[in-house]
Amino acid sequence: MRTVAVELAHAPYQIQIASGLLKDASLIAACLPQARVAIVTNQTVAALYLEDLQQALESSGIRTLRIVLPDGEQYKNWETLNQILDALLEHRCERKTTLIALGGGVVGDMTGFAAAIYQRGMPFIQVPTTLLAQVDSSVGGKTAINHPLGKNMIGAFYQPRLVLADLDTLQTLPAREYSAGLAEVIKYGLIDDLPFFEWLERNMAALMRRDMEALAYAVERSCQNKARIVAADEREEGVRALLNLGHTFGHAIEAGLGYGVWLHGEAIAAGMVLAAKASALLGKLRADEVARIELLLQRADLPTTAPELGFARWMELMAQDKKVLDGRIRFVLMDCLGQSELAYLDEAQLRELLH
Amino acid sequence: MRTVAVELAHAPYQIQIASGLLKDASLIAACLPQARVAIVTNQTVAALYLEDLQQALESSGIRTLRIVLPDGEQYKNWETLNQILDALLEHRCERKTTLIALGGGVVGDMTGFAAAIYQRGMPFIQVPTTLLAQVDSSVGGKTAINHPLGKNMIGAFYQPRLVLADLDTLQTLPAREYSAGLAEVIKYGLIDDLPFFEWLERNMAALMRRDMEALAYAVERSCQNKARIVAADEREEGVRALLNLGHTFGHAIEAGLGYGVWLHGEAIAAGMVLAAKASALLGKLRADEVARIELLLQRADLPTTAPELGFARWMELMAQDKKVLDGRIRFVLMDCLGQSELAYLDEAQLRELLH
Ligand SMILES: NC(=O)c1ccc[n+]([C@@H]2O[C@H](COP(=O)([O-])OP(=O)(O)OC[C@H]3O[C@@H](n4cnc5c(N)ncnc54)[C@H](O)[C@@H]3O)[C@@H](O)[C@H]2O)c1
Ligand SMILES: NC(=O)c1ccc[n+]([C@@H]2O[C@H](COP(=O)([O-])OP(=O)(O)OC[C@H]3O[C@@H](n4cnc5c(N)ncnc54)[C@H](O)[C@@H]3O)[C@@H](O)[C@H]2O)c1
Ligand SMILES: [Zn+2]
Ligand SMILES: [Zn+2]
Repeated sequence: MRTVAVELAHAPYQIQIASGLLKDASLIAACLPQARVAIVTNQTVAALYLEDLQQALESSGIRTLRIVLPDGEQYKNWETLNQILDALLEHRCERKTTLIALGGGVVGDMTGFAAAIYQRGMPFIQVPTTLLAQVDSSVGGKTAINHPLGKNMIGAFYQPRLVLADLDTLQTLPAREYSAGLAEVIKYGLIDDLPFFEWLERNMAALMRRDMEALAYAVERSCQNKARIVAADEREEGVRALLNLGHTFGHAIEAGLGYGVWLHGEAIAAGMVLAAKASALLGKLRADEVARIELLLQRADLPTTAPELGFARWMELMAQDKKVLDGRIRFVLMDCLGQSELAYLDEAQLRELLH
Repeated sequence: MRTVAVELAHAPYQIQIASGLLKDASLIAACLPQARVAIVTNQTVAALYLEDLQQALESSGIRTLRIVLPDGEQYKNWETLNQILDALLEHRCERKTTLIALGGGVVGDMTGFAAAIYQRGMPFIQVPTTLLAQVDSSVGGKTAINHPLGKNMIGAFYQPRLVLADLDTLQTLPAREYSAGLAEVIKYGLIDDLPFFEWLERNMAALMRRDMEALAYAVERSCQNKARIVAADEREEGVRALLNLGHTFGHAIEAGLGYGVWLHGEAIAAGMVLAAKASALLGKLRADEVARIELLLQRADLPTTAPELGFARWMELMAQDKKVLDGRIRFVLMDCLGQSELAYLDEAQLRELLH
């Protein structure tokens, strides 16, 4: 088992990474204030993993309640959140009952938020079952639901007591979802970990066949990277912005095509290529370095060319996402391969980049 | 001006107590990260005080948005909370916009919760306009809304940046609401401040005519008491339980009669008398001390006799509110006049107390 410590000042916790964690209740049992949990999951994940987890817990004498939500980002809203809260109240769950999120980032974000606000806060454990959730959404304590006027607009910073990343669950992930998770993995290499980027270049074939050893290392190293950045900036006031590498472009792609047409990770992949090309424009990256980034993403089955949105639409979408200062938009770009930084692009530069 | 410091480890703040604070934007201006606020209030309070506050802010160059909610505890729910969130999003308020609660505990609790969850947390200022809100709900960082299955079930611990208790606003408070606030004031004397209890005995006449000097002292001393207890137990795991003196009985009265028939403070007054009588049963208070408590509450125009609910109903209601351990219910009772403690009552004792 690999362990990543998330060293937050007031709520440190550990991420455990291994095969078979779902079927072993001991780590969970050790951190419950009361032998009672409510497991929140969705219909897809329930069919695959709920039985295993619930059985492991019940046979350790832990009372479990199951709350099964519909599957999909479109359900990450008030109504579904209230399904969780209603169920907790109907079953008289207490402030010491622990909420367990079993699923991808959607289940994790919503369940974490429910835990943050049920009776002003109950303990919360994450069991992420997508690659994206294992390497990204389970680190950092961001929880949220969407609002018709914006994604993740309502939420809280709320840390889990424990994260169990069971690598076995990644074997059943649809290929597109798996690749989307790899986009965030590659991102960590580009933010400030060149050795990891190079490791990914050497091990992409193993990762693409979901080799367990390669996966274990990639998940661990990604979590370490995110944990370090988050611990340095718990409330997102400084360096944490670097985690948004590729995201200003990526969010524009997602919103421009309509949410769900491209997966988030796919949009971020194309966004990182744009960030690399912009960095090249600024003289920070060489053409062969841009090509290395593109090639690695392609080997992960990710798109490297953004869709045509038209320049005006790009600008409109990006201005919604980010603050525009004197006509310049702030981006996360690359200072060199393996080191990102905040930088501004003006309209002429953006026009060249986006045609 | 009187200042009470609430010394919380991670989010210390000050309560300013004086006349005329509403018309003076300087204290608010000094703590805004962005010259923009949204003021949340209700229709009743808006008619009385919104103009003053908004004008003071606008003439200091602060952009203000007004969000006026319907008046009443029955609106302390999801729907009204969403009115606040929708307005913030429609007007593109940012994470650095400050939310100001102008009103009683209902507005304060709901607005504080909205601030806690809007974009994962925005700055929050309380301008409490009821006596109860000035001495109780504005100290301690509890925010919440009600759920059909329970009061204050959904919420967060979230501290304001600043509390402005403008004593002038108390002059327009309906008499019943004013008395209800006095119940919580008297409670602080009984929890662990005998000198304050005795000061209240000497100054109740002045308080009942809403004398400004007496009020200033009573609000300050109450806030000091609550702030001390809360700072010692931010997350409500220990001594903070003493703040519930009179509340287990009081909640049963509120729920037994139907919420709103008796005001919370009225129910707590009768509840404190029951707590005093129970303490006498246990040999901790003398009859003349119980009588002093009753007399002080009566002079504040508060009820001292609980309504007839019937023993079975009392037990049912109190068991809902508190945990029953081996047939005994935990109460906050008095160890002596001016010092409360946790204690248990068994069924025979409760039967004697409640007939
Ligand atoms: N909190 C954060 O810091 C953070 C970071 C990044 C993303 N997010 C959020 O995460 C969400 C995206 O997460 P996601 O990519 O995991 O999406 P998701 O939760 O929708 O999961 C993707 C799909 O895979 C299915 N699935 C999950 N686990 C599976 C498994 N083991 N086998 C087969 N199918 C499985 C799901 O049911 C779903 O259909 C977004 O809402 C995003 O806002 C949050
Ligand atoms: N957060 C906490 O720690 C805490 C503590 C105690 C109570 N509470 C909550 O506070 C709420 C009760 O607060 P409340 O007693 O202030 O009730 P409230 O907010 O309903 O106010 C009582 C009435 O007085 C009106 N009002 C307010 N200010 C006025 C003024 N200056 N002049 C004339 N009318 C005025 C209101 O519009 C309302 O009709 C409950 O929801 C309770 O749960 C919270
Ligand atoms: Zn992302
Ligand atoms: Zn009270």
